[in-house]
Amino acid sequence: MLLKDGIPFMQTGAIRVRYSETDKMGVVHNANYLSWFELARTELCRNFGKPYKGWEIQGYYLPVIEAHCNYKYPATYDDVVLLFCRVPVEQIKPHSVLFEYRAMLDPDRLLAEGWTKHAFVNAESKIYRKNNLFQKWLLEEAEKFYAN
Amino acid sequence: MLLKDGIPFMQTGAIRVRYSETDKMGVVHNANYLSWFELARTELCRNFGKPYKGWEIQGYYLPVIEAHCNYKYPATYDDVVLLFCRVPVEQIKPHSVLFEYRAMLDPDRLLAEGWTKHAFVNAESKIYRKNNLFQKWLLEEAEKFYAN
Amino acid sequence: MLLKDGIPFMQTGAIRVRYSETDKMGVVHNANYLSWFELARTELCRNFGKPYKGWEIQGYYLPVIEAHCNYKYPATYDDVVLLFCRVPVEQIKPHSVLFEYRAMLDPDRLLAEGWTKHAFVNAESKIYRKNNLFQKWLLEEAEKFYAN
Amino acid sequence: MLLKDGIPFMQTGAIRVRYSETDKMGVVHNANYLSWFELARTELCRNFGKPYKGWEIQGYYLPVIEAHCNYKYPATYDDVVLLFCRVPVEQIKPHSVLFEYRAMLDPDRLLAEGWTKHAFVNAESKIYRKNNLFQKWLLEEAEKFYAN
Repeated sequence: MLLKDGIPFMQTGAIRVRYSETDKMGVVHNANYLSWFELARTELCRNFGKPYKGWEIQGYYLPVIEAHCNYKYPATYDDVVLLFCRVPVEQIKPHSVLFEYRAMLDPDRLLAEGWTKHAFVNAESKIYRKNNLFQKWLLEEAEKFYAN
Repeated sequence: MLLKDGIPFMQTGAIRVRYSETDKMGVVHNANYLSWFELARTELCRNFGKPYKGWEIQGYYLPVIEAHCNYKYPATYDDVVLLFCRVPVEQIKPHSVLFEYRAMLDPDRLLAEGWTKHAFVNAESKIYRKNNLFQKWLLEEAEKFYAN
Repeated sequence: MLLKDGIPFMQTGAIRVRYSETDKMGVVHNANYLSWFELARTELCRNFGKPYKGWEIQGYYLPVIEAHCNYKYPATYDDVVLLFCRVPVEQIKPHSVLFEYRAMLDPDRLLAEGWTKHAFVNAESKIYRKNNLFQKWLLEEAEKFYAN
Repeated sequence: MLLKDGIPFMQTGAIRVRYSETDKMGVVHNANYLSWFELARTELCRNFGKPYKGWEIQGYYLPVIEAHCNYKYPATYDDVVLLFCRVPVEQIKPHSVLFEYRAMLDPDRLLAEGWTKHAFVNAESKIYRKNNLFQKWLLEEAEKFYAN
């Protein structure tokens, strides 16, 4: 199972739930978690040493090709949500990568967990068949990080 | 496989892609598909004869407990996206229900397909253990609809 | 007063309020009206004969430089909202243009009215000082439309 | 002019621009600033000593009745945006209140400035005609804060 195999998650920031993120049920609308996961992914790249933004400037894009989320407990307005991300080495494939996420209310309360799968493409949406520097870098950084 | 077993999808409307739904990649941001699926779910209930809104007024809520989406082709600003939904009879369980979706650019171009799983809860977020009128109605309508 | 001088509004479509557009107050969150106004602006251009999308492809962009909205009555989930837009001739300036909007629940119930001011810029965000084909076209179409 | 009269703004946090907040122009979509202003308003109340969330629990709601924004410079993905808010004493009226905002890229770069006007209402959307504890508190705190 993706999220229960002992590979540690990196805490990648905390956000304050916005009023605009709630819906008439009084809790955070389900679509917002995908934006939060995206924030977590951004911070993981930054922590690995190079912001995702820098990769886009260099011509590497990571469109989402598949997304999954399990909603465990509702987040509410003004909550501080802790975001976590990890990218297991075996999920960094030649042409795709899978990031895993957790959103927590506090260290004991899991709000949601999920994953997104991405393709490595250039500015013209063509998949990198070779010389995929982003994939190479991600693999090196993940190997270093998870070896510790 | 959920989406390839011959149970027909109901077309549940068409939307025009909003500028605000695009992102810096120039295409629709992945999180918006969950809002589109929600629109499709709303219309399916309306087509079955009772709007989802009416069920909420009666004290029935359907929070999302799991969501999945496969992104096949990017939607862009000003596209007309056709939304489809179905709720196979065997996915209407006593305490949960799973809706399936397709977003199409035209009858031949699949943009995304996915599903969401929901709990039947009351206004206090308690699961309906019995007298679940929404579930009963959904089952009856789905049986009628898919029998034709 | 901008919105009360007899220049007619063009109905530019109708939308169904999405669940994701509501907030914990149970009504549509204020920020969504700016996206709805954008939809209305898009449709006005289409009705004038050339979609805004086509202008972007030709290198004309209309970033918002000022926005205003008066909220009169709350829209709620599943409401059908009628959108209206107009662009008075005198608001089409050499370097900027102001569109006005109304969101109605039905012909008698005003939900919100507002306006947005835009610059005419190219893909490098430079203001068109001359040869502004978009401005010229908008002026011609507005003169024709409001003369009738 | 509302924003140039010497009443100091309070810094009310900083946010990282999300990918989902950008649009196909490559910059932050205009509607997001209203959500950011909301965050700033939330933090101002917290800094004054009682979170806005607490006021809602006590039955006080502040729906937006008017909003205005001037966009000065585009924010882009991954920018750190500083948010500022103030509530001048003379803008705290018996039945309404006006908050002013600034979004800055750094201390020298103004991204946008704007304001929102709100009614004080109860859970049934009725305006507080008397015993408006929220208004009284806001006035006292603003007087204290701006007297320093």
